[in-house]
Amino acid sequence: MSKKVAIVIGSDSDLGVMQKCADKLSSFGIENEIRIMSAHRTPQAACDYAKNASENGFGVIIAAAGKAAHLAGVLAAHTVLPVIGVPIKSSTLDGLDSLLSTVQMPSGVPVATVAIDGSENAAILAVQILAVGDKELTEKLLQMKKDMENAVLAKDAKLNCR
Amino acid sequence: MSKKVAIVIGSDSDLGVMQKCADKLSSFGIENEIRIMSAHRTPQAACDYAKNASENGFGVIIAAAGKAAHLAGVLAAHTVLPVIGVPIKSSTLDGLDSLLSTVQMPSGVPVATVAIDGSENAAILAVQILAVGDKELTEKLLQMKKDMENAVLAKDAKLNCR
Amino acid sequence: MSKKVAIVIGSDSDLGVMQKCADKLSSFGIENEIRIMSAHRTPQAACDYAKNASENGFGVIIAAAGKAAHLAGVLAAHTVLPVIGVPIKSSTLDGLDSLLSTVQMPSGVPVATVAIDGSENAAILAVQILAVGDKELTEKLLQMKKDMENAVLAKDAKLNCR
Amino acid sequence: MSKKVAIVIGSDSDLGVMQKCADKLSSFGIENEIRIMSAHRTPQAACDYAKNASENGFGVIIAAAGKAAHLAGVLAAHTVLPVIGVPIKSSTLDGLDSLLSTVQMPSGVPVATVAIDGSENAAILAVQILAVGDKELTEKLLQMKKDMENAVLAKDAKLNCR
Amino acid sequence: MSKKVAIVIGSDSDLGVMQKCADKLSSFGIENEIRIMSAHRTPQAACDYAKNASENGFGVIIAAAGKAAHLAGVLAAHTVLPVIGVPIKSSTLDGLDSLLSTVQMPSGVPVATVAIDGSENAAILAVQILAVGDKELTEKLLQMKKDMENAVLAKDAKLNCR
Amino acid sequence: MSKKVAIVIGSDSDLGVMQKCADKLSSFGIENEIRIMSAHRTPQAACDYAKNASENGFGVIIAAAGKAAHLAGVLAAHTVLPVIGVPIKSSTLDGLDSLLSTVQMPSGVPVATVAIDGSENAAILAVQILAVGDKELTEKLLQMKKDMENAVLAKDAKLNCR
Amino acid sequence: MSKKVAIVIGSDSDLGVMQKCADKLSSFGIENEIRIMSAHRTPQAACDYAKNASENGFGVIIAAAGKAAHLAGVLAAHTVLPVIGVPIKSSTLDGLDSLLSTVQMPSGVPVATVAIDGSENAAILAVQILAVGDKELTEKLLQMKKDMENAVLAKDAKLNCR
Amino acid sequence: MSKKVAIVIGSDSDLGVMQKCADKLSSFGIENEIRIMSAHRTPQAACDYAKNASENGFGVIIAAAGKAAHLAGVLAAHTVLPVIGVPIKSSTLDGLDSLLSTVQMPSGVPVATVAIDGSENAAILAVQILAVGDKELTEKLLQMKKDMENAVLAKDAKLNCR
Repeated sequence: MSKKVAIVIGSDSDLGVMQKCADKLSSFGIENEIRIMSAHRTPQAACDYAKNASENGFGVIIAAAGKAAHLAGVLAAHTVLPVIGVPIKSSTLDGLDSLLSTVQMPSGVPVATVAIDGSENAAILAVQILAVGDKELTEKLLQMKKDMENAVLAKDAKLNCR
Repeated sequence: MSKKVAIVIGSDSDLGVMQKCADKLSSFGIENEIRIMSAHRTPQAACDYAKNASENGFGVIIAAAGKAAHLAGVLAAHTVLPVIGVPIKSSTLDGLDSLLSTVQMPSGVPVATVAIDGSENAAILAVQILAVGDKELTEKLLQMKKDMENAVLAKDAKLNCR
Repeated sequence: MSKKVAIVIGSDSDLGVMQKCADKLSSFGIENEIRIMSAHRTPQAACDYAKNASENGFGVIIAAAGKAAHLAGVLAAHTVLPVIGVPIKSSTLDGLDSLLSTVQMPSGVPVATVAIDGSENAAILAVQILAVGDKELTEKLLQMKKDMENAVLAKDAKLNCR
Repeated sequence: MSKKVAIVIGSDSDLGVMQKCADKLSSFGIENEIRIMSAHRTPQAACDYAKNASENGFGVIIAAAGKAAHLAGVLAAHTVLPVIGVPIKSSTLDGLDSLLSTVQMPSGVPVATVAIDGSENAAILAVQILAVGDKELTEKLLQMKKDMENAVLAKDAKLNCR
Repeated sequence: MSKKVAIVIGSDSDLGVMQKCADKLSSFGIENEIRIMSAHRTPQAACDYAKNASENGFGVIIAAAGKAAHLAGVLAAHTVLPVIGVPIKSSTLDGLDSLLSTVQMPSGVPVATVAIDGSENAAILAVQILAVGDKELTEKLLQMKKDMENAVLAKDAKLNCR
Repeated sequence: MSKKVAIVIGSDSDLGVMQKCADKLSSFGIENEIRIMSAHRTPQAACDYAKNASENGFGVIIAAAGKAAHLAGVLAAHTVLPVIGVPIKSSTLDGLDSLLSTVQMPSGVPVATVAIDGSENAAILAVQILAVGDKELTEKLLQMKKDMENAVLAKDAKLNCR
Repeated sequence: MSKKVAIVIGSDSDLGVMQKCADKLSSFGIENEIRIMSAHRTPQAACDYAKNASENGFGVIIAAAGKAAHLAGVLAAHTVLPVIGVPIKSSTLDGLDSLLSTVQMPSGVPVATVAIDGSENAAILAVQILAVGDKELTEKLLQMKKDMENAVLAKDAKLNCR
Repeated sequence: MSKKVAIVIGSDSDLGVMQKCADKLSSFGIENEIRIMSAHRTPQAACDYAKNASENGFGVIIAAAGKAAHLAGVLAAHTVLPVIGVPIKSSTLDGLDSLLSTVQMPSGVPVATVAIDGSENAAILAVQILAVGDKELTEKLLQMKKDMENAVLAKDAKLNCR
C-alpha cells in the first residue's frame, strides 16, 4: 500500500488554499493529514515531525507558507523525504517573497517548489513521486491526464459548437 | 535496482551547469544520461522522449532551461513521471524569467522547481524521489546529510580553532 | 481573400479577455476562430493545430495564456506562421510571469508579444501582418488610425469646450 | 519580390547587437537597411521615416532601443506596418525597463515585442510576416527550422556518442 | 505675470488622477489647461503642442500616462521647456511599467519624473520651477510648506491631546 | 545673470558619475559647485545647505545618492527650490532601490527624478528650469538640441555611406 | 524601570496599522507614545524629537512610513538609539518601495527593518531590545513565545480532533 | 561589562563580507565570535546555539545568509534575544531573494534586517542595542557619529579646496 502524505501549513489561514491539496490526494486514495506547524512559532514540533515522518509512514511532505516562507526548508533540513513547497500569496508583494524564500534553497537541501498557491499541483506532484514504480497509481495519473485532456477538448468543442 | 534519471538540457550551453547534476547522481549510483533537447527547436524529439521515458526505465526527468524556460513544462505535459525543473540564469533578467517560466505551472501539470542554477539540488531531489521506499538509497541520503553536517561543523571548528 | 486568424486560449477563463480580440478581427472582416487548447493539458491537439494551421488557411496565430505561459511558444515550435502572444494577468505576480514566459523566447523561435491583457492589440497586429501587401486591408488600418486620432481629438475638444 | 525590412536603432551603441538581425535577414535574401534614429533626439526624422516606410517599399520595421525604449512605439504611431520591438539591455535594471517600455503599448498601437537583445528573433519574425502567402519564403523558413532541429539533434547525438 | 502650465494626459481615464494637479496649480494662481493627447494615437497633435508650447505662453509641461508611458518623453523631444512626467498606475504591473517608461530617458532629453499617480507633486514641482526668481510665487510656496507643517503638527497634537 | 546650481552628492564615490553633471552645467555657462553631504552622516549640514541655498544664489539643487537614497528628499524638505534627484546605481539591486527611494515622494514635497545614473540629464533639466523666461539660455538649449540631432543624423549618414 | 518606546508615523493614515504596535508594547507594560511626524513635512520636529529621545527617557524609536519611506533613516541620522523601521504598504508597488527605502541604509546609520506592515513585530523587537539584561522583560518574552507556541499547537490539535 | 555578540554565517563563503562586522564590534570593545552554522545543513547545532546564546553571555545574535536566507529566522525561533539579519548578495537575483527571505518574518518572530551585505551596519545596530542604558557605549556611538560626520565634512572641504 502507498505511503502517506503529510501536509504542513504554517498558519490556519492557509487552510483555505490547502484543503484542495488534501482533497486531491484523497481522490487518488492517498492517505494524508493536514498539520498546523510553524517554522518560527513551533520549531521543535516541526523538526520532530519532519524527523519522524518517514518512520511514521509518510513518503512525501508538502509544506505551505507565506511571506518569509521558511517552513518547507526547515522541514527539509530534518528529513531526506522529498519536501514539496507551496508558496502562499499573502497580503504584500504578491507572493514573490514566498516564492523566493521557498525555492532558492542552498545546495544540499532541495525543496520541490510548485506555483504560488499551487495547492492541487503539490498534491499531483506528491502522487507522481509515490507512483514511481507503482503501476496502479501510475494508471490513475494517466487517467487523470486523459480526463484533463478530455475536459479541455470538450470545452473547445462546445465553444465551437461541435 | 533503482530507476534511471534523465537530464534534459535545452541547449549545450547549459552543460556547464548541469554536469554537476549528473556527477551527483552518479555518486549515488544512479544511472543517468544528459540529453540535449529543445522545447522549441526539437519539440517532437522532446515529446517523444518524455512519452517513452517511463517505459525506457526512467523514474525521474530533470529539465534545465533559461529565459522563457518551457522545457520542463513541455516534458511534464507528456509524462506522469515527476519532472524537476532547473531554471538557468541567462544573460538578462538574472534568472527571474527562467524561474517564473518554470515554476508557475497551471493546475494539473506540476514541475518540481529548484533554485536558479540549482543543479546539484535537482540531483538530490531526484535521489530523494527514487529513495521513497528504497532503504539502501535512503541510507545513502542520510549519510550525505551527515557528511554535509560534519563538513560545516568542521569548518566552524577550524575557524574557531577547536 | 485574406487568410484567417486563429485565436488559441489556454483556458476558458481567458475567454473574457480574448473575445475582444475576435470582435476586433471581425470588424476588419478577418475570419477567425477561438480555440481552447493547452500547451500542458492538450499538448497533442495544440501541436497538431499549429502544424496544420497554414494548410488550413490561417495566416497568423494568436495565443493567450497566463502564469508560466508556454502556449504561444509551444505553438511557435510547430509552425513558421507568425505567432502573437498575449500574456494574461492571473491572480499572482500581476502578469509579470505571463509576460516573461511569453516574450523571452530563445533564438530561432520568436513570439510577437503584446502587452499584458493586450487583446485588441493582438488583433490589430494580426491585421497589420495580413495587410502587408494588401491595399484594402491597409486602407482599413489607416482609417482605424484616423478614427482613433479623431476620437482623441474629439475628447480633447469636448474637455476644453471647443 | 519580397518587401524590404527597416532596422532602426536608437543609438549606434546598439549596432553590435543588431548587426546580427541584418545578417539574418540577408541570409533569407531580404533586402534591409540599418538606420540610426532616435525617438527623442531626431523625432522628426523618425516620424518621417515611419510615415514613408510603406511607400518606400518596406514591409516591416524593426526598432531596437534601451532604457525608456520609446522608439518602436513612436514609429508605430506613424505607420500601419507591423513594428517589431527589440528591447536592448543597457547598464541598469537588466533590460526590464527596455522590455516594459516596448511591450506595454496602449490599445490601438501594438508593438510586436521579442526578447531582450532578441536581435535574431526580430529578423526571423520579420521573415515570418513577409512569408505569409509567400511560398518561397515559407519554404526557406521551414528549411531553417529543420536545420535548427538537426543542429540540436546532432549536438545531442555527439554528446551521447551516437 | 507667471507663465502657464500645460497638463497633457494620454487618455481621458487619467482625468480622475490629474484634476487634482490642475486644482493645485489654480490654488497658486497659475493658469493651466488640461489637454488629452496621445503619443501614439495623436502623435502629430502632441508634437505640435510641444513645439508651440513655449511660444503659446507655457513655462512647464506636465504629462501623465500609464503602461508604456511615452507621452512625457515624446513631448520632451519637441521642446526645451521642462517636462514633468507623472507615471499613472494602470491595471497591470502596479505602475512599475509607467514609472520606468517615464524616468529612464536617454541622455539629452530629461523628464522630471514624480511618484506614481503623483498628481499634486507634479503641480508643486511646476510651481517651484516657475518660482525660481519669482518672489511672490516663492512666498506662496513657503506658505504652503508652513501650512503643511502646521497641519501635521496639529494632527500630532490632537492625537496626543495637547 | 543666471542663478547657480548646487550638486550635492551623498558620498565621494558618486563623484565619478556626477562630474559629468558639473561639466555639462559649465558648458552652458551655469555656475555650479559639487558638495559632499549626507542625509544620514551630516544631516545638519545638509539641512542648513538646503535652507540657505536660495539666499546663497542657487536656483536649483541636484542631489545624487544610492541605495536608500534619502538625500534629494531630505534637501527638498528644507527648501522650495526645485530639487532634482539622480538615483545612483550601487552594488546591489541594480539601482531599483535608489530609484524608488528618490522618486516615490509623498504629496507636498516633490523630487524631480531623472534616470538611474542620469548625471547629464540632471544638468540639462536644471538648465531647462533656469531657462524658463531666459531667452539666451533657451537659445543655448535649442542649439544643443539641434547639435544632438545633427550628431545622430551624421552617424546615420555615415553608417549608410551618404 | 524600563525605558519608553517612541512610535513615529509619517502620516495619520498609518495609524490603523501602527495602533497594534502600541497595544503590543502596552501588553508588555512598556510605556509608549505615538507621534505623527514627517521626514518631509515636519523635518525640524522630527530631527528634534530624535535628538532628544534618549534624554527624554526613550530606549527605542519605531518609525513607520510608506512609499519613499525616509522617516526611519532621518530619525536614525539624529540619534544613536536603535531605530526600528516599519515599511508601510501604500497604494502602488505593493510596499516594495517602502521596504527598499527603509532597509537599504548606507554604512554607519542602520535601521532595524521588519516586514512590510510588520507592526506587531516592531513592538516585539523593541521589547527584545529593552529586555537585553532585563530578566523580568525576558521572562515575559519567553512566556509570549510559549503562549504563541501553545496557540499553534492547540489549533493543530483541534484541526486533527485530538 | 557588555554582553557578547554572536555572528552566525550560513557558509564560510560569507566570511569575506562578515569579517568587517566582527572588526567593527571589536573596535567598540564588544567581545564577539563568528560561527559557521547552517539552518539547513546543521539545523540542530544552530537551534542549540540560539537556545543557549543568552545563557552563554550573548546579548545579540547577528545572522548572515544568502538566497533563501532562513538562518536569521530559524535562530530567532529559538531565542528571545534580538536577532539581526544580514541578507547576503549571492550569484542570482541580486540579493532580492536574501532580503525578502530575511525581512518578511511572520508576526511573533521579528528579525531586525539591515541592508544587503550590510555587514558594518549589523555591528553598529548590535552596539546600539547593547548601548541602551549603557552610558559608556552610548558615548562611543556618539563619538563614532561625530567622527563619521567630520570625515564627510573633511572630504567636502577638500573637494572644495577650503
